[in-house]
Amino acid sequence: VFQFHIMQSLEAVKLISVSFQLIPRLSRVNLFTLLSLWMEIFPTATEDEESKGTKPLSDNSSLPPSFRQTGLAVVQNMKVTGLHCSSSELHAGQIAVIKHGSLLKGCDLYFSRRPCSTCLKMVVNAGINRISYWPADPEISLIESEMLTGASSLDAKLDANAAERLRSNSRAHIGVLLQPLACNMNQFVEETSKKCEFLQKMALLEPNFNLDEFFFENRKKQLKDYEKIFLISDEETHKCILMKMGLENFCENPYFSNLRQQMKDLILLLATVDASVPNCRDYGFYCGDFHSEETAHCHGLPQDIARHCVVQARLLAYRTEDPKTGVGAVIWAQKKSGSCDGTGNMYLIGCGYNAYPMGSEYADFPQMDDKQKDREIRKFRYIIHAEQNALTFRCKEIQDDEKTMIFLTKCPCDECIPLIKGAGIKQIYTGDMDSGKVKADISYLKFDSLRSVYKFRDQSKLKGGGAEGTAARKERREARNSTRGKGVDVMGENLGVGQTRVHFCGKQADLST
Amino acid sequence: VFQFHIMQSLEAVKLISVSFQLIPRLSRVNLFTLLSLWMEIFPTATEDEESKGTKPLSDNSSLPPSFRQTGLAVVQNMKVTGLHCSSSELHAGQIAVIKHGSLLKGCDLYFSRRPCSTCLKMVVNAGINRISYWPADPEISLIESEMLTGASSLDAKLDANAAERLRSNSRAHIGVLLQPLACNMNQFVEETSKKCEFLQKMALLEPNFNLDEFFFENRKKQLKDYEKIFLISDEETHKCILMKMGLENFCENPYFSNLRQQMKDLILLLATVDASVPNCRDYGFYCGDFHSEETAHCHGLPQDIARHCVVQARLLAYRTEDPKTGVGAVIWAQKKSGSCDGTGNMYLIGCGYNAYPMGSEYADFPQMDDKQKDREIRKFRYIIHAEQNALTFRCKEIQDDEKTMIFLTKCPCDECIPLIKGAGIKQIYTGDMDSGKVKADISYLKFDSLRSVYKFRDQSKLKGGGAEGTAARKERREARNSTRGKGVDVMGENLGVGQTRVHFCGKQADLST
Amino acid sequence: VFQFHIMQSLEAVKLISVSFQLIPRLSRVNLFTLLSLWMEIFPTATEDEESKGTKPLSDNSSLPPSFRQTGLAVVQNMKVTGLHCSSSELHAGQIAVIKHGSLLKGCDLYFSRRPCSTCLKMVVNAGINRISYWPADPEISLIESEMLTGASSLDAKLDANAAERLRSNSRAHIGVLLQPLACNMNQFVEETSKKCEFLQKMALLEPNFNLDEFFFENRKKQLKDYEKIFLISDEETHKCILMKMGLENFCENPYFSNLRQQMKDLILLLATVDASVPNCRDYGFYCGDFHSEETAHCHGLPQDIARHCVVQARLLAYRTEDPKTGVGAVIWAQKKSGSCDGTGNMYLIGCGYNAYPMGSEYADFPQMDDKQKDREIRKFRYIIHAEQNALTFRCKEIQDDEKTMIFLTKCPCDECIPLIKGAGIKQIYTGDMDSGKVKADISYLKFDSLRSVYKFRDQSKLKGGGAEGTAARKERREARNSTRGKGVDVMGENLGVGQTRVHFCGKQADLST
Repeated sequence: VFQFHIMQSLEAVKLISVSFQLIPRLSRVNLFTLLSLWMEIFPTATEDEESKGTKPLSDNSSLPPSFRQTGLAVVQNMKVTGLHCSSSELHAGQIAVIKHGSLLKGCDLYFSRRPCSTCLKMVVNAGINRISYWPADPEISLIESEMLTGASSLDAKLDANAAERLRSNSRAHIGVLLQPLACNMNQFVEETSKKCEFLQKMALLEPNFNLDEFFFENRKKQLKDYEKIFLISDEETHKCILMKMGLENFCENPYFSNLRQQMKDLILLLATVDASVPNCRDYGFYCGDFHSEETAHCHGLPQDIARHCVVQARLLAYRTEDPKTGVGAVIWAQKKSGSCDGTGNMYLIGCGYNAYPMGSEYADFPQMDDKQKDREIRKFRYIIHAEQNALTFRCKEIQDDEKTMIFLTKCPCDECIPLIKGAGIKQIYTGDMDSGKVKADISYLKFDSLRSVYKFRDQSKLKGGGAEGTAARKERREARNSTRGKGVDVMGENLGVGQTRVHFCGKQADLST
Repeated sequence: VFQFHIMQSLEAVKLISVSFQLIPRLSRVNLFTLLSLWMEIFPTATEDEESKGTKPLSDNSSLPPSFRQTGLAVVQNMKVTGLHCSSSELHAGQIAVIKHGSLLKGCDLYFSRRPCSTCLKMVVNAGINRISYWPADPEISLIESEMLTGASSLDAKLDANAAERLRSNSRAHIGVLLQPLACNMNQFVEETSKKCEFLQKMALLEPNFNLDEFFFENRKKQLKDYEKIFLISDEETHKCILMKMGLENFCENPYFSNLRQQMKDLILLLATVDASVPNCRDYGFYCGDFHSEETAHCHGLPQDIARHCVVQARLLAYRTEDPKTGVGAVIWAQKKSGSCDGTGNMYLIGCGYNAYPMGSEYADFPQMDDKQKDREIRKFRYIIHAEQNALTFRCKEIQDDEKTMIFLTKCPCDECIPLIKGAGIKQIYTGDMDSGKVKADISYLKFDSLRSVYKFRDQSKLKGGGAEGTAARKERREARNSTRGKGVDVMGENLGVGQTRVHFCGKQADLST
Repeated sequence: VFQFHIMQSLEAVKLISVSFQLIPRLSRVNLFTLLSLWMEIFPTATEDEESKGTKPLSDNSSLPPSFRQTGLAVVQNMKVTGLHCSSSELHAGQIAVIKHGSLLKGCDLYFSRRPCSTCLKMVVNAGINRISYWPADPEISLIESEMLTGASSLDAKLDANAAERLRSNSRAHIGVLLQPLACNMNQFVEETSKKCEFLQKMALLEPNFNLDEFFFENRKKQLKDYEKIFLISDEETHKCILMKMGLENFCENPYFSNLRQQMKDLILLLATVDASVPNCRDYGFYCGDFHSEETAHCHGLPQDIARHCVVQARLLAYRTEDPKTGVGAVIWAQKKSGSCDGTGNMYLIGCGYNAYPMGSEYADFPQMDDKQKDREIRKFRYIIHAEQNALTFRCKEIQDDEKTMIFLTKCPCDECIPLIKGAGIKQIYTGDMDSGKVKADISYLKFDSLRSVYKFRDQSKLKGGGAEGTAARKERREARNSTRGKGVDVMGENLGVGQTRVHFCGKQADLST
């Protein structure tokens, strides 16, 4: 069965041409694939500190022991309606069924690994339209099974056969959807990532900061890590796995080398975007606001989770239709009680990027910016902001009594602030470099004075800490105690210490050599 | 672009002919337009007592200062699914996006003013099907901008241009939908308004009450007020505004004079219906029930808001299919926490009028009433009551822990009482003149003995007050303190004073000359 | 009007043929009809202990006094989305409108009696697609009206005429949908009912238990009771009622005798399935788990309600696609506050049976079991379990703060346990004979060690009680006090008494002769 669909369609390589520049754009399929890969490494807070990437099920499990953690993006009508990752008890596909139920009907699912037959039968039964998976080691690992006992190896093989039979008998399309990146995409992502305000903020605050060195060092580390997780270094092993998964057509060249190149390109893109949001001990998203009354909604997320969601927004920004600036927005909420999802009690509300009104054709609206003198032909009155798209096409309603958070790649403007507040969002995680400014037709004056929404700005922990009164500091310390997870918390331990050196932290640190 | 759609269709002038009478009927388009106008003057409780009709945004606003308050009716499949008005922070269109999200797709929106370009881009983006607006001064006032500084005037002009460009590039139909009233409509509304039980109740209770004088006096005041808000007195200014909005085809006669006549007719109808529910200090909707335990659901709405919703029900009644009696019902609920809507924390659950079963053709069912001897050919077993339609086609679910209120133009019958109670409605606002009676095939015996739902009957405050024990009175006083708003409260101040003279009250009073 | 639709279609008599056996299967229409009949006798907890089967409305009712309790199954796209029964205040059709609102559009309704004209006009108005009703005495009894005063008799006749007129003018199809049972269906149901694990458990625990005697005795009692409720013994009376309901074509033979035979067959099937779950004082669903902290979710249902729901699951199991074992699952939840439904505050979340993935064709997947040596061609990796279907196609979301319960015909396997837990289900009612076992490709090891979900296993009250510590016993006693209803409670009265004799209990007891 030939399943390889390199969509060389116009959509895949769609370029938005404007007067002075050409901006390459991520195709939808690649965006959803990248989001699923990124979800696989969601910083889950497991009690027993299991290693990332491979998290075995409990001993009583009826599933083979060689189960690999999987990320999943659920897409309905080209909108992301769910981002999930497997937990210690449930696979990603099972979580999708529990969370979406009959709403899965007609959805497309993007898995970071080929799902096992248990997941497959359940999502096929729910009536999904299409399944795409990343063509490396599947959920029930075929690599590890080689090294395991005969029984486990047999189970993995039986599962692969069952998955193939489910695929061939399903009305849903199940296969590999990868599209080549636009030729200058990775170069563009690298340039914009270095200019990204999270890195610029560090450059602004740190006296001896070498942005290029910091960025490339960071990306190198991430890349090495992600190649280990998402790629199969040995070509023969990869071919062998493709064969077992019924993808024998991928095993011949030039298909095989094309496939591996596309996979590598996407992994590089992911590492580049990841490196644009500093992952170091002293920088993060801190709330410097002073609020007299403490509410359930003032406690920030662990830094690694906040950062993870901001990177999602950064990925979305590469679908922008704005000829100059891409902005991404993601909204998550926290349920009060626990959940079976690998994201803990967090669930997706919506996401978006800045674009011309839905349904508009190319050149329906002006694309000029403030360089044009005639204000009438400027784009500003026509572009739907990322926040607006995330709110408009939300897949869940915002609950008044839950903590709902929006993650943004840049400071929200005065048009969006009342929308964010009015929609009942409780926390904003963002950069604030534009705050207080007026840029041509867009003003950012309301952000600073915004009350009733907690603002977690990208900043130095120490700088943020120094500006706070002792009351706020105490409040924060309590927040730290109540938030779950192993991540670096809202307020670190060495509060008040004068050092501002940058440390790499978290799971990637020990993988660097 | 010619956008004027005077739908001279059969629907617009549909008359229900029965044996002895012809009842004219409001067309859907006119009903939705009237509801949007009525929503513009929803008695919002603003802290700083801003003047009605024009409510400026806060100073930091990125929007021009000449912003005018706007009402909005959201309609899906010919059912009203939302009634909104702009607030101090958000425009009506933005509120619609926040409240309905992707549910706006395919909806029709009826604005009481042409929406500004910010609203327009957002609702077009959400996928609305059609926008109709009242063709007077738009949301970003073109009248006031004349008198303003050059900058504001320019902003208003840029906004009008942007709105026109959005209209011309949108797949949605955006324009003016007004239909001529049936020839005898306003006469019919006047007659039925005078016979309306709210006025009849006053006539019954007040010894020297001159119903005609009271009614016409009241209507005159309202009419003057509404003409000021919704019409443009100067014909040239009106033409000028129509030109700026791209409605140049309206500026020629007979189109221009027809348009103005239709607008005037609708405003007269609104004022007439408004005058059918007394707006005076001593009459209102009071709860005389004694309930041993005080719950969160026993506190009544401010009188001006309760009255506003009853007038909505009165408007709906003019869509009746009953050959003799029109009844309207509106259901609203209150969220526990605040909201960005101009209605505060109130939101629409549903609304309806009495009609033959959905989908039935003309003369499918008997239309006779109790004058016919043969009970088999009477209408009573076939008509769906207003309450039943409001409940059946509700657009939101009724939440057990929220205060849900039904507003009725007359006392609910024994068929509806268990439905209202069973659906979890907490308060009924209604007239009670039929209570305790049996009229041919309909009995109204259950209303009086209904417990577990609080009944706010149309009555004299003083009469209602006298019937209460001191415990209930105390309860009421606390209710008053906790309810928000500037409106006349559940229990007025001069409780116990014997005077029963009628005073005009509220916002309209100071506009009368 | 000829309305009799004996669907002799393939669907109705669909047989699943496998290597060594032929399993007859219930048609959908018969299943939904049986569920509606079963709902009519839902053990409602009425304060004044009104007699079952016929429950008069309160005196103030506008409805005729001869109103009979009615069961209702709401079906959308062939999935059951609601199971209701009339209450002391509302008819089943009215409850459907209040509970489902505009979601009724396009649904099929299965009534256990022909609905009265009030119900009919409301559900027709809501846009239902099809109504099927059981062709015996209608909701407004035509039998009892014969014996009543002239006025009531007239009302019943007027109602029947109005119902007929509503039927003839409705776009919905309103009629009698009954299908003949597969020829060996009742024999198959009898055999599988005797082998059912609830009876086997008793046989295991009771030293001198005569399973056959117990089963047939029980079935005889139920059958007698149900014939009294659902059939009309006198043929002429039945014909007379069919005439009055506009079903004159049923009154001729062979149609009349066929109709009565089909009705009798279905009633026999119902009584047989009913008898497969012991209805006796000492056996029931008891929670033997020890949980240190008492939560709102540890209290079990009254035994008669728990049993009622397990019988629903048993009925569903006869739609299985598994060539060997049928399993049924039903999920109910309890609202915090009361409801207008005859089920009290209970409402259906979903239901299902084991089957091959939705949309798969006959023989798409292996149907072999563990008798085949080659594991690859066994069915186990392809069948969707009953629990999975109930969860996937749930019609309501599971609320974290509500008590949600799953009722199963057998112990859940290790694949389903994490799904049940992850979905937020709080209680499992099931047999546990497979618990702790591994059967070929399915293991049942996780059930015993499952925490955080309360397990109510089918067991002897006394045995269950003896195994408990005193703390748990005290906890139970409190649970009993707080649960409503007249049913035999979680822990009976003579706790600790050594007797293990089997008593018939509940409402059927006094009907046995």
